[in-house]
Amino acid sequence: MQSDLPEVQELSWALSNFTPMGLLERCHSYKDKVARGIHANHGLFAYPVLMSADILLFRSEKVPVGKDQKQHVEVTRDIAAKFNNEYGEIFTLPEPEIDEQVSTVPGLDGQKMSKSYGNTIDLFLEEKALRKQVMRIVTDPTPVEDPKDPDKCNVFQIYRLFLDKEQEQALRQRYLAGGLGYGEVKQELFESIRDFFAPYAKRRKELLEDKDGLRKTLAEGAQKARYVANKTMRKVRKKTGLTY
Amino acid sequence: MQSDLPEVQELSWALSNFTPMGLLERCHSYKDKVARGIHANHGLFAYPVLMSADILLFRSEKVPVGKDQKQHVEVTRDIAAKFNNEYGEIFTLPEPEIDEQVSTVPGLDGQKMSKSYGNTIDLFLEEKALRKQVMRIVTDPTPVEDPKDPDKCNVFQIYRLFLDKEQEQALRQRYLAGGLGYGEVKQELFESIRDFFAPYAKRRKELLEDKDGLRKTLAEGAQKARYVANKTMRKVRKKTGLTY
Repeated sequence: MQSDLPEVQELSWALSNFTPMGLLERCHSYKDKVARGIHANHGLFAYPVLMSADILLFRSEKVPVGKDQKQHVEVTRDIAAKFNNEYGEIFTLPEPEIDEQVSTVPGLDGQKMSKSYGNTIDLFLEEKALRKQVMRIVTDPTPVEDPKDPDKCNVFQIYRLFLDKEQEQALRQRYLAGGLGYGEVKQELFESIRDFFAPYAKRRKELLEDKDGLRKTLAEGAQKARYVANKTMRKVRKKTGLTY
Repeated sequence: MQSDLPEVQELSWALSNFTPMGLLERCHSYKDKVARGIHANHGLFAYPVLMSADILLFRSEKVPVGKDQKQHVEVTRDIAAKFNNEYGEIFTLPEPEIDEQVSTVPGLDGQKMSKSYGNTIDLFLEEKALRKQVMRIVTDPTPVEDPKDPDKCNVFQIYRLFLDKEQEQALRQRYLAGGLGYGEVKQELFESIRDFFAPYAKRRKELLEDKDGLRKTLAEGAQKARYVANKTMRKVRKKTGLTY
């Protein structure tokens, strides 16, 4: 848990001094959010530095990310290289690991699903609330009887994540044939989500009920993380002179 | 010592999320440095947030600052008010305490003396190096025999800090009368600096030689500071949900 390690913020601050403003100003993720009217606060702007600290503190070699997060790993490499250039080989330069099979998951409005955009489907909602959310997926006003373009339909783009190739092909045919109502296909999608995540919801509930077990797991994780973090921070503090 | 308390960086990060970008973009200190060609890195840009953490962590009520730093206390108040507005009365809103008698000290080039500008006089230099530095104060090419304007002279502006009203008046007369060489007045200034700071230099040397005493003093300070810092951070973590 990030907040168990104040070392993350400590390193983030040290890295800030090796982060050109232009590097952050060019970050798509910040620019996109601001363009969408999300309030531009400094926490959002500085977030790539915090992510860099999260990565570099543990000397990670590979960072599994979605395509849209590739830039943040590049920012991390840039900052790490600048720091190493000044103080010697302290940080490992991480490589992004992108699974080309995994696409960005679209949200209710067809944009990238993101909590910041308020367009998420909350997998662990109660059945009724989950159904309501799925029903909110944005669709066009094509009448039921008309053929529809699955590649332009937000419901289809989400639904296909739950389907194998054959099932996807069959659904595509139903779109193209006409006579398919969005309400009908949303109901199916809702059921797919509910059924697919049922065992995970069950497991989640069990975990949440075992508060002591959770605390123990987090404490063990913090201890492991702290060991690696301290190794890195001792070097950083020594090299930057923040020690006596 | 700031680096003894990672709580400073932890709080700084929390405050960032309540710091509008515009607030930092308007900070004179950042704008001035960038205008002077100082490399714009994120550490410099984010510095007012770090200063806010330094102030708010210890629930300071008054912050003694020079006039040029008044804006940073105002930024601190803005951030604290935003945070309090969201989470209740956690932070004390500090007041700047400005001694109107104290003016900004000019540096070698007549601009505000600042390490970032590379125009400082290092009070604890060895005699020879100190003299060399004072000789570098920028002056105009008025010939020795001509009258000179003390109010436009960098040497005078620094020298007057060591003079009482009568002495200042006498020096002013020597400027206006003509026949005063800058080399001569720089030599006097050098001697004034050396003599004024001699007892402090002696005390500093004694302190630096007592490494164990220094470590003990710093450790005691850290302990006192940590007590207050933890009180604040417990509230911050609880209110922001960064605890379990």
